[in-house]
Amino acid sequence: MEDTTVNDNEPKVKKQKKESDESGAVYPPIFGPGHALDYNLFQLSNTPLTEAHQQKALEQLEVYLKAQQETFLGYQLNENVHYSKKLSFMLDIHTNNIGDPFVNGNCTVNTKIMERAVLDYFARLWHAPTPSTPENKESYWGYVLSMGSTEGNLYALYNARDYLKGKALYKEPNSDLTFVRPMKANLHSKNAFHPIAFFSQDTHYSITKIVRALEIRTFYEIGEREYKGQCPITSDGHWPKEVPSENGNEGPGSVDVDKLIQLVEFFARSGSPPLIILNIGTTFKGAYDNVEQVGHRLKPILEKYNLYERKVEHAPDKYDIRTGYWIHVDGALGASYLPFLEKARHRILIKEHIPKFDFSLPFIHSIVTSAHKYPGCPMPGGIYMTKHKYQIKPPDDPEYIGSPDTTFAGSRNAISPAALWCYYANTSDEIEIAKAIKVEETAKYAETKLKELERNYHRYGYKLWVERTPLAITIRFRDPSNPNNKDPNTKDPVVLKYSLSQMEIKVDGENAPRKYVHIFIMQSVTKKIIDDLVHDLANAYDQNLLSKQENVGDQSVSVSSTTENPHIHRVTHVPLDKRGYSGN
Amino acid sequence: MEDTTVNDNEPKVKKQKKESDESGAVYPPIFGPGHALDYNLFQLSNTPLTEAHQQKALEQLEVYLKAQQETFLGYQLNENVHYSKKLSFMLDIHTNNIGDPFVNGNCTVNTKIMERAVLDYFARLWHAPTPSTPENKESYWGYVLSMGSTEGNLYALYNARDYLKGKALYKEPNSDLTFVRPMKANLHSKNAFHPIAFFSQDTHYSITKIVRALEIRTFYEIGEREYKGQCPITSDGHWPKEVPSENGNEGPGSVDVDKLIQLVEFFARSGSPPLIILNIGTTFKGAYDNVEQVGHRLKPILEKYNLYERKVEHAPDKYDIRTGYWIHVDGALGASYLPFLEKARHRILIKEHIPKFDFSLPFIHSIVTSAHKYPGCPMPGGIYMTKHKYQIKPPDDPEYIGSPDTTFAGSRNAISPAALWCYYANTSDEIEIAKAIKVEETAKYAETKLKELERNYHRYGYKLWVERTPLAITIRFRDPSNPNNKDPNTKDPVVLKYSLSQMEIKVDGENAPRKYVHIFIMQSVTKKIIDDLVHDLANAYDQNLLSKQENVGDQSVSVSSTTENPHIHRVTHVPLDKRGYSGN
Repeated sequence: MEDTTVNDNEPKVKKQKKESDESGAVYPPIFGPGHALDYNLFQLSNTPLTEAHQQKALEQLEVYLKAQQETFLGYQLNENVHYSKKLSFMLDIHTNNIGDPFVNGNCTVNTKIMERAVLDYFARLWHAPTPSTPENKESYWGYVLSMGSTEGNLYALYNARDYLKGKALYKEPNSDLTFVRPMKANLHSKNAFHPIAFFSQDTHYSITKIVRALEIRTFYEIGEREYKGQCPITSDGHWPKEVPSENGNEGPGSVDVDKLIQLVEFFARSGSPPLIILNIGTTFKGAYDNVEQVGHRLKPILEKYNLYERKVEHAPDKYDIRTGYWIHVDGALGASYLPFLEKARHRILIKEHIPKFDFSLPFIHSIVTSAHKYPGCPMPGGIYMTKHKYQIKPPDDPEYIGSPDTTFAGSRNAISPAALWCYYANTSDEIEIAKAIKVEETAKYAETKLKELERNYHRYGYKLWVERTPLAITIRFRDPSNPNNKDPNTKDPVVLKYSLSQMEIKVDGENAPRKYVHIFIMQSVTKKIIDDLVHDLANAYDQNLLSKQENVGDQSVSVSSTTENPHIHRVTHVPLDKRGYSGN
Repeated sequence: MEDTTVNDNEPKVKKQKKESDESGAVYPPIFGPGHALDYNLFQLSNTPLTEAHQQKALEQLEVYLKAQQETFLGYQLNENVHYSKKLSFMLDIHTNNIGDPFVNGNCTVNTKIMERAVLDYFARLWHAPTPSTPENKESYWGYVLSMGSTEGNLYALYNARDYLKGKALYKEPNSDLTFVRPMKANLHSKNAFHPIAFFSQDTHYSITKIVRALEIRTFYEIGEREYKGQCPITSDGHWPKEVPSENGNEGPGSVDVDKLIQLVEFFARSGSPPLIILNIGTTFKGAYDNVEQVGHRLKPILEKYNLYERKVEHAPDKYDIRTGYWIHVDGALGASYLPFLEKARHRILIKEHIPKFDFSLPFIHSIVTSAHKYPGCPMPGGIYMTKHKYQIKPPDDPEYIGSPDTTFAGSRNAISPAALWCYYANTSDEIEIAKAIKVEETAKYAETKLKELERNYHRYGYKLWVERTPLAITIRFRDPSNPNNKDPNTKDPVVLKYSLSQMEIKVDGENAPRKYVHIFIMQSVTKKIIDDLVHDLANAYDQNLLSKQENVGDQSVSVSSTTENPHIHRVTHVPLDKRGYSGN
């Protein structure tokens, strides 16, 4: 590759031929159904693009996005969003909810009045005392996120870490000292102010990133360093990196509560405060951790080791009482709809037990959910919620923005609170209950259809591994991709059409990891899309079977390449029933 | 305050009377010119709001926001944004640029093709080698932010910290080991992998928050702990919390380079790698740190203490060569327009020396700028840019999103890259140069008008402290607020009308801190708004002078309250010239 270092002050736009690129564009195209977005059309330079050029680019983008939107199945993103009619005017103003949502501040071009309404709505949904007011320490506090739940998880873990480290609380009368660690504590353990993180193997990858960024030590790190070979939950004492899920990779995706409790107790014994992240709707399997059981089983252990409640002394006669543990619920997906399934159960519309996860459980410290997942939002967003009593003191109280710096973001998106406001202004418990039930029914329909499809391949020993965790709104099954396609920029057409996310899962007793995809049944998903998917999957599986006749059961064997252009739809359905495949 | 704990599963919407609130609403109103947004209108419940109710709320919000937009002066936010015509369709799709901008990924509803164009544009503007490709380690890498520059600062400091700690680099052939600290290094100092942060007293408050969240130690902390009383830049050896700015609080706001260099050298002597944050456009004074001088003066010091370049060994025969320092430029405001002033100087349209800050300086590691500040964007956004050679290895490479997890956000806003694309598609060097010159001229106009106003008050000894740092697009002056108004939710009308941000600055030899506000001359600011501001300021200053006749020079003396309702505009101009004030 030639060196493109720029030496003068007026660099020229340089087009560089890349091997993978036929158009001569600097970056590869983005493929959609039928046509691709060519980078050449979008490239900017030091002179204006003509109005016609801009229009063409925007039109192509719109056509591309709308086509992808119609068949979107692969992620927990609700594509049923309609905000242009009500909120287009917000594209002609810069709005900004900088600072605390409950203090107006000087940056007046904000939608904090809607943000408060949305937060109060979620506080009621999650059984937290309202309204939010510092005078009632039990009342909720929170804000609408500018990223998705990653920001909420970041803020939760940052607050949790410093809370457990004994740093000053926000607006605590006794905490006029700032960020010094406590001088003394009623616990004499050297570990008393070193939190240890616990989360399951099915936890979203953002937690790993955040734990690293915040330098929070996990039980694995401490175990490996200080208690090598002593892990209480493995036969040989080795430390797993994450808390195992029930039945491991083959299981439903929820945390193994027994193992979690054993791990927490192991470290509680030496005084370490646990920081536990639980999931309500895991990323790949849509599973719900048993939050209620975790809390109830932890209580006697925490009490035994003086971690249930403790006195944190900052100086003589300066102290506060706080918990020696933190439980954060990553409800990015599930925390938005489980409350309505619970309401449905109360009305005897459904029978299933609905997992509890919210502030009705006294041991919950913080909850996060995403705006763009279940309710739907044009851009990423979400809700972070905690209680006033758990808030740590921000490092600075900048008068500059006229509002305390209690959030993470600085400048904060003011459109997503407006979109959430429009969504919840337009709905009711009855409507939301009906939607939640419909989503569950569509998920069942998809599960049934995919299992029907699976039966067609039984005779060839070709398994589709169709699985759905109870109450999950996702179904996982075999990746329909051509296994020879390794280029991340040229996905298989079925993967592209439905935006399917891929995941390798290693199953005990099998040589190679299984390649899965999954679909999410959001409010935007119809039975028609499911039927189309099943049809397209049949084509893809048939092609894959044809291209590796002798090795249907073994993913690790290299198979002959199909030389088709992966950007062109396969339209033929190969009638497998008439051919003689052998199973294994 | 009554306890509002919710005990049943179907909490009722509870309205609670707050003392400060006349409407009976749960939260206080938001005040605009002439009318307030009442929370009652926006409150959500378990039943739908009628279409008429929703319309009324949205209309009131629109009227409020547009009024605030028209007179917006107080923050570095460009209110000249017009994207509804081109981008409204994006409010009816959920779009998401999750994962690396240069890998398409499986989440197809993205605008990464525009994001790449915008990033390439900024890379050329900032003299970084393009295109972005891992094969050219000198080429740039970056992404468009979902928050404002806070996210970019967070990611820069996170990457910088782990880079200086010797963690594995991204796609470094020798770094197949992951996040272990290096086993050895060519430096034997115990401090070799403990970065120390340096930033000036005029640095944005987000840096303090990020440094705390990432647990990066500052020179103040280490100085206080390990070298008490030995600070090389103070007469008594005490450690200042931040690097002093030139001439302290009274100065222009740029870092004192001499003092910065002395501080860095002090710690470099014991082997600590410096992490230096420099500003291009400080938050309050709009000042530019002398980035070029800092780099040139640091070089011999870094070389002397083996920090200019060093070999980081991970294992026998596993090593990389990297710098032992990191310089991050927070160009939230200035990095977007200084390049055009530089181009103006090249074309001999202006004469002033324009500060250099970009990748044409070989010692720059990362730069951040905001989308919603200079160019303008409906929502917060911005650009983070570094080079491939500086990227650390992400903690996870989730195949799930079909794209490496090289960004911080997870789900990423796809509308702000589209807005930036529209902005830069529609402009040219000539247009941007003209805009940058016009903004400077308007800033000069505002400075002149405010200094004229100031002269009216000379005879009363009432100083307005009108100041403008050279080339800054902000002017600071005395806060026109009634000093008796302490309620953060009821700002003074001038403060509200122009969204003025407030700041206390302690000046040597004065008892009480000065109360300042400032205005930012963004592209949206016209001479007409300046004239209106000057008129309204005159009224406000007159009122304040009237209400504390005897104490005009002393901010610390308590003065009699004006009992006016601060939500009603003062319209009378009190003719001060006719009254006998005594100065002091």
